[in-house]
Amino acid sequence: MSQNAVVMGAGMVGSAMAWDLSKQPGFKVTVVDSRPQALERVAKRWGIATKQADLGSPSEVKRLVADYDLVLGALSSAIGLQTLRAVIEAGRPYVDISFMGENAWELDALAKSKGVCAVVDCGVAPGVSNLLAGHAANALSDCTNIEIYVGGLPAERYWPFEYKAGFAPSDVIEEYTRPARVVEHGKMVIKEALSEPELMAFAGMGTLEAFNTDGLRSLAYNLKVPFMKEKTLRYPGHIALMRAFRHTGFFSPEPIPVGGVKVKPLDVTSALLFPKWTFEDGEVDLTVMRVLADGTQNGKRVRLTWDLLDRADPVSGFRSMSRTTGFAATSMAVLLARGEFQEPGVHPPELVARKPGLTAAFLKEYEARGVKVTAGSAAAPE
Amino acid sequence: MSQNAVVMGAGMVGSAMAWDLSKQPGFKVTVVDSRPQALERVAKRWGIATKQADLGSPSEVKRLVADYDLVLGALSSAIGLQTLRAVIEAGRPYVDISFMGENAWELDALAKSKGVCAVVDCGVAPGVSNLLAGHAANALSDCTNIEIYVGGLPAERYWPFEYKAGFAPSDVIEEYTRPARVVEHGKMVIKEALSEPELMAFAGMGTLEAFNTDGLRSLAYNLKVPFMKEKTLRYPGHIALMRAFRHTGFFSPEPIPVGGVKVKPLDVTSALLFPKWTFEDGEVDLTVMRVLADGTQNGKRVRLTWDLLDRADPVSGFRSMSRTTGFAATSMAVLLARGEFQEPGVHPPELVARKPGLTAAFLKEYEARGVKVTAGSAAAPE
Repeated sequence: MSQNAVVMGAGMVGSAMAWDLSKQPGFKVTVVDSRPQALERVAKRWGIATKQADLGSPSEVKRLVADYDLVLGALSSAIGLQTLRAVIEAGRPYVDISFMGENAWELDALAKSKGVCAVVDCGVAPGVSNLLAGHAANALSDCTNIEIYVGGLPAERYWPFEYKAGFAPSDVIEEYTRPARVVEHGKMVIKEALSEPELMAFAGMGTLEAFNTDGLRSLAYNLKVPFMKEKTLRYPGHIALMRAFRHTGFFSPEPIPVGGVKVKPLDVTSALLFPKWTFEDGEVDLTVMRVLADGTQNGKRVRLTWDLLDRADPVSGFRSMSRTTGFAATSMAVLLARGEFQEPGVHPPELVARKPGLTAAFLKEYEARGVKVTAGSAAAPE
Repeated sequence: MSQNAVVMGAGMVGSAMAWDLSKQPGFKVTVVDSRPQALERVAKRWGIATKQADLGSPSEVKRLVADYDLVLGALSSAIGLQTLRAVIEAGRPYVDISFMGENAWELDALAKSKGVCAVVDCGVAPGVSNLLAGHAANALSDCTNIEIYVGGLPAERYWPFEYKAGFAPSDVIEEYTRPARVVEHGKMVIKEALSEPELMAFAGMGTLEAFNTDGLRSLAYNLKVPFMKEKTLRYPGHIALMRAFRHTGFFSPEPIPVGGVKVKPLDVTSALLFPKWTFEDGEVDLTVMRVLADGTQNGKRVRLTWDLLDRADPVSGFRSMSRTTGFAATSMAVLLARGEFQEPGVHPPELVARKPGLTAAFLKEYEARGVKVTAGSAAAPE
C-alpha cells in the first residue's frame, strides 16, 4: 500500500494529522494552507511537505485533491460543507473534522453517486464519541440509554475560570448559550445550556462537573436509542461563574448603547476572555471523555463504559486536543486507506460503527498513537 | 424655637430629610431642586413646600439659602464642595451628605471666619460610623483599634448577585476597584479592594461577608488610633463573583477595540448591571452596620460595639438607605437648631463627637426616627 495523502489546513489539528500520517509506513503527506507562516512552521518543525493554495475556493480544492489518493480536512467549520462537496466531486476518499454547522449528510446521495467514501465529524467528540455510541447501539440489544461526557481542560487550574479554550472563546461561549438538544423517551427535548450540573469522579482527574451542551448532533437522528445526552466537563465552579456571566448579559449578541456607540456585550466579553483563555506555550492540556451505554448483553442488563484521558505530549509538542482530534481522523484515514472501510456515502462515525470489527480496529489504531480508550462493563444501574 | 429650613435636593435621601424635618415641632421646611418632577413628587406625596432653583450654580445657592435659618444638603458629590462654599459664604449652618471627593475641611478656615457651623459626611457611613468612632476614641483611653462594618442590602436575596444598589452601579464598582486605605500600626496602608474577606454573623441578618473598601476617609486623619479599617458587607458569595468580574476585566475603564469601535468594558458592565441592581418599587432594603472599638475603660481592656440594623419603612415608603442616611442628617440638624452644637468650622462627625454628650443626644434623635443603634461592651479580645 502506498498512499499519497493531503491534509487541508496547517493549524494545530491539521499539523498533528500530517505529523502522525507522515510517520505511517507507505504514506506520503502534503499539508496545504493559504497561510505561508503556518506552512513554514509545519515544514520547519516536522519536516513535512507543504503547498500553498486558497482552500476557500471549492474549485481550487477540487483541482488540488485530484492529485492525491486520500484527503483529510482540518479547515474552518464555515467552509466545511463546500469543501466536502468539492472533495466528493473530485472523487476522493475523505476524513473531515471541520464540524460544519450544516448537515453534511445532505451530500450523502452525491457521494454515493460518485462512489466516494467520506467520514465527517471524525474528531474526538464529535467523533470517537459517535463511534462508541454507534458501536454500543449495535452491540447491545435493547440499548435504552447513551451518555457522553467530554471536556478539554488545562492540567493546571488557575482561578477563577480553571479553564483554557482549545479554540476561540466565542465558540466556547456559543456552547454555553445554545439550547442543548437531548433525547428523552425517544423524543428530542430542549434543555438550557449549562443546565443540570452534576459532579462526577474521573480517575486521574478528580471530581469534574458535567452540564448539558448541544453535542448530540447526528446521533440524535441516526441512533434509535430512547435516552441520549452529551454533557461537557469542566472543573467544578466554572459553570456557576459562566451562568452568572450569562445572566448578567455578558454573552448577549444583542447590541446595547454604550458611550454613544452600539456594542455587542458578547464581543467585549470575547475580547476580554481571549487572552485569559488561551493556552500559554508549553502549557499542558488534557482531554477527558466517558461514553456509557445501557442495554442487554447475553441476557443481562449491562452498562458498557469507555473512558479516555489524554495529555499534551511534550515530545511532539502537540496539545491533547490536537492529538485526540487529529489522531481520530488519521486512525480513520488509515482504515480507509487499507480498505477496511470504503462504503460510498457521507458517514458520521456512528454509521461507520455499523461495520463489524471497525470500532475495535479504530481503537487499536488510536491507541497505537498513544490515545488509550479503556472499556469497562458492569451491571446496569436499576 | 422656630426654624425655617431648606433641603437642597429632592432625590430619595433629600425627600426623607424633608419629610422627617417637616414632622418636627417648630420646623418649616422647603425642598429645592432643579427637576420639576422630583419637586412635584415631594409636594404630592408628602405635602412639603417646594421651590425650583438651579443648585448647580453656587451664586444661586448663596442667594437661596440666605432666606433660611438652617440648610441641609443632599446633592450630587460632584457639586458638594462648591455648594458647601456657597452656604458658608451665605453664613448659614449646614448639614451635608453629598460625600464629595474633595476634602471638605479645606473650607474649615473660611467657615470659622464666617462663624458658620457645617457638618459634612453626615449620613450613615460615612456619618454615624464617624460619630461612633470619634466618640469611642474619646471615651476610651489608649484606643488601639476601630473597625467599621457596613452594608446596604436587599432583604430578599436573588441569584447570582444577592445585591441591589442604593445608588448607581458605577459607584458600587468604584468601591470594588479603588484601593482601600486602612490604618495599621499608625500608618496608612493600601489594600486591594475586595480583599481580606471574612464571614461574620449579624443578629437578624445571618452570616454576611466583609471585605476591604476605601471607607475611612477623614477618620484616617482625625483620629489617632493605630489600627482602623472600614469593611463593606454583602451576602456571602457576592465578593467572589465581583472578584471574578474584576479579574476578567469587566470593571476596566481602559477602552478596548471591539467591532471597529473603542469601548470601556466598565461602561458595558454598568449598562448591563444597572437594571439588575436597581431596587424594584416596594422592594425592601436593609442597612446593617457594626462599629467596634478596643481600648481601656475604668482600668480594663474593653471592646465597645454599636450595632445598627434598619429596614425599609412600608408606611412612609422610604428605603432604609434613605432613612439611615437622611435621618442621620436631620438628627444632626435638630442638634444644630437647638444650639447643642454650633462650633464654627467644617466638621466631619468624628470631630462633632468631641463635644461631651453630643453622641448620646444624636443617638436619641436617631432612635426617635426609628433607627436604633444598640451599644454593647465586653472584654477586649486578647
